Amino acid sequence: MTLKIGVIGTGAIGKEHIRRITHKLKGAQVVAVNDVNTEQAQAVVRDEALQAEVYASGVEVIQAAEVEAVIVTSWGPTHEEFVLASIAAGKPVFCEKPLAVTAEGCRQIVEAEIEAGRKLVQVGFMRRFDHSYRQLKRVLEADTIGAPLILNCVHRNPQSPSSDFSGDMALTDSCVHEFDVLRWLLDDDYVSVQVIQPRKTRLCDDELQDPHVILLRTRQGIHISIESFVNCQYGYDIQCQVVGETGTANLPEPPSVPVRHAAKLSSGILDSWKDRFIDAFDVEFQEWIDATLRGEMTGPSAWDGYVVAVTGDACVKAKYSGRIEPIELPECPDFYTN
Amino acid sequence: MTLKIGVIGTGAIGKEHIRRITHKLKGAQVVAVNDVNTEQAQAVVRDEALQAEVYASGVEVIQAAEVEAVIVTSWGPTHEEFVLASIAAGKPVFCEKPLAVTAEGCRQIVEAEIEAGRKLVQVGFMRRFDHSYRQLKRVLEADTIGAPLILNCVHRNPQSPSSDFSGDMALTDSCVHEFDVLRWLLDDDYVSVQVIQPRKTRLCDDELQDPHVILLRTRQGIHISIESFVNCQYGYDIQCQVVGETGTANLPEPPSVPVRHAAKLSSGILDSWKDRFIDAFDVEFQEWIDATLRGEMTGPSAWDGYVVAVTGDACVKAKYSGRIEPIELPECPDFYTN
Amino acid sequence: MTLKIGVIGTGAIGKEHIRRITHKLKGAQVVAVNDVNTEQAQAVVRDEALQAEVYASGVEVIQAAEVEAVIVTSWGPTHEEFVLASIAAGKPVFCEKPLAVTAEGCRQIVEAEIEAGRKLVQVGFMRRFDHSYRQLKRVLEADTIGAPLILNCVHRNPQSPSSDFSGDMALTDSCVHEFDVLRWLLDDDYVSVQVIQPRKTRLCDDELQDPHVILLRTRQGIHISIESFVNCQYGYDIQCQVVGETGTANLPEPPSVPVRHAAKLSSGILDSWKDRFIDAFDVEFQEWIDATLRGEMTGPSAWDGYVVAVTGDACVKAKYSGRIEPIELPECPDFYTN
Amino acid sequence: MTLKIGVIGTGAIGKEHIRRITHKLKGAQVVAVNDVNTEQAQAVVRDEALQAEVYASGVEVIQAAEVEAVIVTSWGPTHEEFVLASIAAGKPVFCEKPLAVTAEGCRQIVEAEIEAGRKLVQVGFMRRFDHSYRQLKRVLEADTIGAPLILNCVHRNPQSPSSDFSGDMALTDSCVHEFDVLRWLLDDDYVSVQVIQPRKTRLCDDELQDPHVILLRTRQGIHISIESFVNCQYGYDIQCQVVGETGTANLPEPPSVPVRHAAKLSSGILDSWKDRFIDAFDVEFQEWIDATLRGEMTGPSAWDGYVVAVTGDACVKAKYSGRIEPIELPECPDFYTN
Repeated sequence: MTLKIGVIGTGAIGKEHIRRITHKLKGAQVVAVNDVNTEQAQAVVRDEALQAEVYASGVEVIQAAEVEAVIVTSWGPTHEEFVLASIAAGKPVFCEKPLAVTAEGCRQIVEAEIEAGRKLVQVGFMRRFDHSYRQLKRVLEADTIGAPLILNCVHRNPQSPSSDFSGDMALTDSCVHEFDVLRWLLDDDYVSVQVIQPRKTRLCDDELQDPHVILLRTRQGIHISIESFVNCQYGYDIQCQVVGETGTANLPEPPSVPVRHAAKLSSGILDSWKDRFIDAFDVEFQEWIDATLRGEMTGPSAWDGYVVAVTGDACVKAKYSGRIEPIELPECPDFYTN
Repeated sequence: MTLKIGVIGTGAIGKEHIRRITHKLKGAQVVAVNDVNTEQAQAVVRDEALQAEVYASGVEVIQAAEVEAVIVTSWGPTHEEFVLASIAAGKPVFCEKPLAVTAEGCRQIVEAEIEAGRKLVQVGFMRRFDHSYRQLKRVLEADTIGAPLILNCVHRNPQSPSSDFSGDMALTDSCVHEFDVLRWLLDDDYVSVQVIQPRKTRLCDDELQDPHVILLRTRQGIHISIESFVNCQYGYDIQCQVVGETGTANLPEPPSVPVRHAAKLSSGILDSWKDRFIDAFDVEFQEWIDATLRGEMTGPSAWDGYVVAVTGDACVKAKYSGRIEPIELPECPDFYTN
Repeated sequence: MTLKIGVIGTGAIGKEHIRRITHKLKGAQVVAVNDVNTEQAQAVVRDEALQAEVYASGVEVIQAAEVEAVIVTSWGPTHEEFVLASIAAGKPVFCEKPLAVTAEGCRQIVEAEIEAGRKLVQVGFMRRFDHSYRQLKRVLEADTIGAPLILNCVHRNPQSPSSDFSGDMALTDSCVHEFDVLRWLLDDDYVSVQVIQPRKTRLCDDELQDPHVILLRTRQGIHISIESFVNCQYGYDIQCQVVGETGTANLPEPPSVPVRHAAKLSSGILDSWKDRFIDAFDVEFQEWIDATLRGEMTGPSAWDGYVVAVTGDACVKAKYSGRIEPIELPECPDFYTN
Repeated sequence: MTLKIGVIGTGAIGKEHIRRITHKLKGAQVVAVNDVNTEQAQAVVRDEALQAEVYASGVEVIQAAEVEAVIVTSWGPTHEEFVLASIAAGKPVFCEKPLAVTAEGCRQIVEAEIEAGRKLVQVGFMRRFDHSYRQLKRVLEADTIGAPLILNCVHRNPQSPSSDFSGDMALTDSCVHEFDVLRWLLDDDYVSVQVIQPRKTRLCDDELQDPHVILLRTRQGIHISIESFVNCQYGYDIQCQVVGETGTANLPEPPSVPVRHAAKLSSGILDSWKDRFIDAFDVEFQEWIDATLRGEMTGPSAWDGYVVAVTGDACVKAKYSGRIEPIELPECPDFYTN
């Protein structure tokens, strides 16, 4: 059984997912593509030797008779439209983050999906599929360290992406992965957020605040601290420590060769998120394909995308108010808890 | 040359320092002692075979002709009186924390010392003498990781001392060591404090809030987080990580034998502050003896004791207000900066 | 393009490879199977929903018109016959270790393959495909630690497989993986071997010598020590350290969650080779499929299988002679070096 | 009570011990010194402000009425004479390694001491006093890892001392510390030795063999491997791993600040034995002083010095014979076992 997929957006990330599905994963085939740059879409079809139609618009991909499921990797602001169209067409859709550029947009997707009566939407939060986060979750579930009380997380990039990276994007773009994965790890929800702006590094744009420290509180009262430091220079470094009632547990470091040389015992630190999460992407898409073929949807849902959007908004508000801001969410609809 | 010392207070900690001076360190001799419990003072003289007079009061110890320097290890509320009396007598005095039980008391000691025109007071903040903190400070001074931006510290005890330990003591009693050592490490001062009360552990007294997270901000804008968790169960664990502009540096773990056994690779964690800082006490007292014999005073000063007291007060205030509270200090007198 | 594979031997490991090819890897399909136990072969076809013929003999699988490549996972003593038959049929064959149960058998395979004029045989030494060994090899190739002088390797199992495990099997069965992967790591060959029998553990069969220490010397004079300890109790543990002229490099530990609990800082050690090398098997077979489809053969060759067999024989001889025994090999035929 | 000490040999190491006793340790005083270079002896007395007589010969130091105990830190070949003279004078003597330059010389000291009827001699094997070796010994004594079966040890120096360092000195000079400390760690004796000469590093004198691998076997059958690599470039590195029936235990690494910087997570490696064992020297001498004042002798004995000398000789013989050479020792006299 092969899942026939249409891909909207064949830029860097879209192309990577197409390659993944075509050359690495089982059970799926890309049969339709679209990109605002039609030549690029054609080039991908040619380069990867796809048996796929190039369509003039994303909506045409969604509506194409041969397309059974949709992947949205186009420009962020177009996500909402394509996800809604997929729901309208009754087709499962995998949407890279953000689900929509506003929380309101996410909420409309949630409503449309509930209306459709069937889970169709998965959002591209790949950390839930990362081996090390899953190892950590198993330790928590085994109750090895008792009930979690505090989480200390770190999200460091060597340099922020050039020119158009604003300080707020560290909160709304980088840290969305933490916002999602920590809820999943703890099976809990956020109730408030505070943002601290420590002394700025001089090794970035003058106008950029970097680092930030984001403090979240959950319903259970768990205190979460996330350091976001997008110009830390030394590498791409993701850390997560859970402090429980009887012990602590940390995300494992990526494996690296320990070397003794020149008066140092050292191991390597990665420098890109791509190397860090490359395997997680494979697992994410294989599980999505498998679940979709079974008629299920098991990954991060539209509701999860909505919660992350609301959290990001509260985060930006807290940054400028300097206060602890509430994160107000309606009760999670039964639709998503069953 | 031998420094003749009078010790006021021969309880557990006083006795330990007497043993240290008598059997382990060079250049000093205990010649006078006092304790509210005279029999206990006599027992120490006998057990340790001291050639020392037992005096009826602390003040008599201070005033005894043969006493050249004083160690105050009596009950906290008596410290202020004995330190002031030592200053009045023109004798160097080493006072275990707290310098005084109120910030106002500390301030009066500062004023008396300035009045006396000579540094006489050292406060018992032993972490500055700990090998691992000194290693960390050297890494910072070598500019290995650039300017510090964030500090993440942890102060965990397996269990809080019985009955009379109140939640606020975690702030004013345990964390005073962090308050002192971090200022020294960074060569900076605090400007504000916030206290977060995370979800409580169930493994302690119902009335106790545990853990706390203390957030400090320094003049340079450095953000400091101190987790105080006095019932963490698993051990006595002191951690300190500095995040700088180009890297991070951590306090080394105490050395321990790595063992592979029963499907675990493990090393031991200490369970008592005594084991953790036993060497630091030796260094602290040896350096105090040596400096005192040279007519100098090089350790934590009365001013440092005062700053810590003010910080502790602001901390308690912040805990109950739930707000970011300022830590207001006068400029450090020239007397202490020269 | 799909490689049509016939599998001979559908026991535990055969079944696992069938599942791997069918459900996980790309580009191949199992179309024919055989097992001495025909019912078992039929059960695998049914359970895994294969579209595959069950043949009455291994040779029939090899000769079946639809079979393009063969996997031999039958009982060790049958390997030689099936590999030779595959060569005779001009079909690529992947053979689990041992290639043949005698060095002479391996040599005949080598000769048959050379005669056939085309590389057809790959032996199942999966460590070359393990991520951590590849990381280590990259460090060596980058000349980070200078020329290798000494290797210290450890091969520990928690318990030896029951009843029929003889002491010599530790040398000829377990350590064959080291024999293969170290030659590959160093791009060198062995010239002599010595076997040391240390004090025996009491935690195994009285008749079993365990552990052994195998000392190998290479043409370049590199000294290799391999500890084989198949009843080490604590876990499955594979270690490899290279000492070079300017530094050392170690195989990374498998990633595991660091936990602080009950006075220990610990991380987990695996207890089975299956968990340790599960990913290596995937990579091994995917690369074999891909290469075979391209008409190439890139993994461990028949020659490698022969060298390992000769090394194992010398090893057993050295164990009983107590002397340093030469490992005598003809020059590697050009056929295998091109 | 103060132990009055005479020091013979005021070169680098002698001066260091004089400073240690005078400024750091308790209970002893240097009252007499001698050096072949009288001016140097006088300079030490002056520089360290000793109240000590400078004698014209070592024997005069030993015989001086005020001298209660002797430290021998003169040129190696003179040790035997001074130790024998101290025994003759009935005075406790601490002798830096070697006890004598020949095993025969050591044996005569053993006999003289037995004749004298009282333990007077301690040899300067400081590793027994090192905190990390003591931690390791406690783990073994607690039976945490079962009976020891194999030891893997490493002795690496960044560079061999200049010009006059011969390859054999790596065996007889550097590794004597391993020879002593491992017997003590295991409470066992050696029965044979083999020396392997791996591929040579090019980063040392052409004539020097470096590294060596020394293989020892104990009475209990424990297999010990010691890598001696005196030009390893990267640092001074002492490692010791014990493989027991149920687990393994390693010597802890010296504590060092873990730093994340420039794509590396690293900690420092020392570059000199002085930094590595500086604390061990303090403990060694304090315990010697304390024991001597009590009329006891608790450290490494003349017998231990003799065993190490015999082991070193067998080691050199094994290097040149290429064979496993026996280490033949008489039974340890009761004098030393009580």
